[in-house]
Amino acid sequence: MSTTAALSALSRIFGNRFSVSAAERIGHGGSESHFDPMPPDAVVWPETSQEVVQIVNICATEGVAVIGWGAGTSLEAQSQAPRGGIAVDFSRMARVLEVRAEDMDCTVQPGITRQDLDAELRHSGLFFPVDPGANASIGGMAMTRASGTTTVRYGTMRDNVMGLEVVLADGRIIQTGSRARKSSAGYDLTGLMVGSEGTLGLVTALTLRLHGRPEAVASAVCAFSRIEDAVTAVIETIQSGIPVARIEFTDAATAIAFNAYKGTNWPAVPHLMVEFHGSDASVAEDARRFGEIVIANGGEDFKWALKEEDRRALWAMRHEGYYAILASRKGARALVTDVCVPLSRLGEAVETARARIEESPISGPILGHMGDGNFHAILMVDPNDPSELDAAKSLSNSLVECALDMGGTATGEHGVGLGKLAYMDREHGEAWHIMGEIKRSLDPYNILNPGKLVPGN
Amino acid sequence: MSTTAALSALSRIFGNRFSVSAAERIGHGGSESHFDPMPPDAVVWPETSQEVVQIVNICATEGVAVIGWGAGTSLEAQSQAPRGGIAVDFSRMARVLEVRAEDMDCTVQPGITRQDLDAELRHSGLFFPVDPGANASIGGMAMTRASGTTTVRYGTMRDNVMGLEVVLADGRIIQTGSRARKSSAGYDLTGLMVGSEGTLGLVTALTLRLHGRPEAVASAVCAFSRIEDAVTAVIETIQSGIPVARIEFTDAATAIAFNAYKGTNWPAVPHLMVEFHGSDASVAEDARRFGEIVIANGGEDFKWALKEEDRRALWAMRHEGYYAILASRKGARALVTDVCVPLSRLGEAVETARARIEESPISGPILGHMGDGNFHAILMVDPNDPSELDAAKSLSNSLVECALDMGGTATGEHGVGLGKLAYMDREHGEAWHIMGEIKRSLDPYNILNPGKLVPGN
Repeated sequence: MSTTAALSALSRIFGNRFSVSAAERIGHGGSESHFDPMPPDAVVWPETSQEVVQIVNICATEGVAVIGWGAGTSLEAQSQAPRGGIAVDFSRMARVLEVRAEDMDCTVQPGITRQDLDAELRHSGLFFPVDPGANASIGGMAMTRASGTTTVRYGTMRDNVMGLEVVLADGRIIQTGSRARKSSAGYDLTGLMVGSEGTLGLVTALTLRLHGRPEAVASAVCAFSRIEDAVTAVIETIQSGIPVARIEFTDAATAIAFNAYKGTNWPAVPHLMVEFHGSDASVAEDARRFGEIVIANGGEDFKWALKEEDRRALWAMRHEGYYAILASRKGARALVTDVCVPLSRLGEAVETARARIEESPISGPILGHMGDGNFHAILMVDPNDPSELDAAKSLSNSLVECALDMGGTATGEHGVGLGKLAYMDREHGEAWHIMGEIKRSLDPYNILNPGKLVPGN
Repeated sequence: MSTTAALSALSRIFGNRFSVSAAERIGHGGSESHFDPMPPDAVVWPETSQEVVQIVNICATEGVAVIGWGAGTSLEAQSQAPRGGIAVDFSRMARVLEVRAEDMDCTVQPGITRQDLDAELRHSGLFFPVDPGANASIGGMAMTRASGTTTVRYGTMRDNVMGLEVVLADGRIIQTGSRARKSSAGYDLTGLMVGSEGTLGLVTALTLRLHGRPEAVASAVCAFSRIEDAVTAVIETIQSGIPVARIEFTDAATAIAFNAYKGTNWPAVPHLMVEFHGSDASVAEDARRFGEIVIANGGEDFKWALKEEDRRALWAMRHEGYYAILASRKGARALVTDVCVPLSRLGEAVETARARIEESPISGPILGHMGDGNFHAILMVDPNDPSELDAAKSLSNSLVECALDMGGTATGEHGVGLGKLAYMDREHGEAWHIMGEIKRSLDPYNILNPGKLVPGN
């Protein structure tokens, strides 16, 4: 067992696609979130699945950790290297391998980013719907079981990954799933891998379900004077079966941050941002029904974005919400909460979060994917003041406890990584240990992303 | 290790909820399909999760097989007992435990049947959409990853089971999933269990996602002179994004069987049966767009069922299709094929199936869930003529090979059991062995439904 031997073997094979430079190690050991840097011992850039097999085989032989690296946008330190090891950077495996428009699917390499895939699909009449804010890699999104603004209509990565090519801890390559739209042929290994955060294998190709670009799209923003009214409007919309494509909540503090970051002039109150997809007739019908719910709950000040450029601007603002909020306090880092609760408890959960943040010494705008019961508080902390991070962690802890008491989850879409590890026992109980047993059966020497997700890892 | 000791212990604990009678053993060792009887050594009827734990603990101690039993409707011998053991009949665990209308979910025991659940939900304004033809148990449907006529709109059991309570091989009880509508909190154990056919654990409770009963529903049948035109109409409907709730294909032989069984007078040609769910306006719009596609592909003779009783009669006929076809040949048993292929290959797959059946000595009407790319040939055989079963198996084999060559699957919804075991290696390759490794990690002594689904089991 020797890291030195692994580095030397990798260097020999990968030449200038291998680096131990401080810059690369630091660049592959950080995150956009509040975690301290945890650099790997080296970075390697494979170009083929077979090269990934070579990397894994070398690391298995030498007992060195292997951590996949996509776009570095994870929020829970999933791709950081608390025990060193080799970061496998997939940026040179970022191609669309095939688009099968008739089947409404495609196969891609893991390093392609969400925005690059969207650009590649633009002329196909199809799109890949999963849409977290960040411009994450598709492989990273699969490993985190990412979701985002369109999940209320199109589902999460769980629902939109049809199959995977995976390199396992012992160097075997497996193909999971098929190109059929459904199957009952044995254990759902695709589903097991999606959300496994690189602890069960390294994904080297993904087959994705695509959706037809809607004929008609309409987006809107509307304002509420009280959080609870906006939340009630969301719940009633979902319960009434209106097929919203997006339904996003932003609180007053988020509106202020948007205005400062983007030069908009939103009133400093809670808002809902919605989008409808369909035919001209269905979009008009959906918008009418939604409008009735909004009015009945005291919403007002509807602003419609019907032109594509206006819609793009609106959703770009939403996607940059995290950065807008971060920019509202100079030099701040953020701890982002990510609870998801049953719809009937959503109002109470958001109110509780808002009240506890008010009582705390730190600020934390709230926004989120309310149609799924998922919301985030962006808890801003001064990285040089440990007491602020402690306060944020304590606040986050109390919101998780609240969500779990309501039958919800510690993480709707950001994953476990290091940030949510402490809650897994409370959330899953014995089932968490079963995750550990599955991990050990597939990676007995614990070389794949050690220290993450499962107990005793 | 002693079956005798296990029987004796179970008899002592369960009294008259335990039986070794020939009638019960035979009743729990058969299937609706072509498999020979494989009776268990005994049948037990638990009433609580803790009683299931007791059963599993006794069987684990004595090394005796444990096989879950729902409604006995599986088509691939999943619940038969090729190695004997104890059939765990869930018919006394068949209650709805809780309906949470605001959250649009419910928790049920595994023994409740699809139709009983539907009746219990009738006044809630909600429904559980997964709808295989048979009146299966919900637990059995989860274990088979069942789907059916509404999957094209609402998904399979994979998409509609939010969480499970599972008794594992060592008697531990785990809770998987949560009541949040999405989560990134670790491995998707719910998804791993759904479709595992009782080889990883016995499900003792299920939390299900419910959907609002649509305001407006419209069903229709239309006729085509050629199979390929009907299939093209299906493909174009899916690709155009019309949100059909159901889109079913039946061939000419099925129409003849319907007429004989139900006294209808369908023309002896291929048909599509469709249903739309939504508001009055959206249903009308969907129906109009679908109608245009049908006409463009030479379809005709539209019959609409707008009243609930007419719709019920229409779908009852579809659901009884298997029995109608079986009744068309006195004393016949059936081998039902279940391939599922990518949409672009669907026409070719159906045509190939039709041609190969014509060339064979046996008859086999074709019908199926074409919107998913999934169809069945009901291959009828004389149970007293082994050459017919051999011919059917050979035909089934050739259809599976064809589907796998097209990137599809051997089983869209009926599962693996014993009937599809021989195809798993060809379909999954090395990934099948990974399924075996997961099985061994959770059930090292192989007491849970041995002989099924995984290699070397």
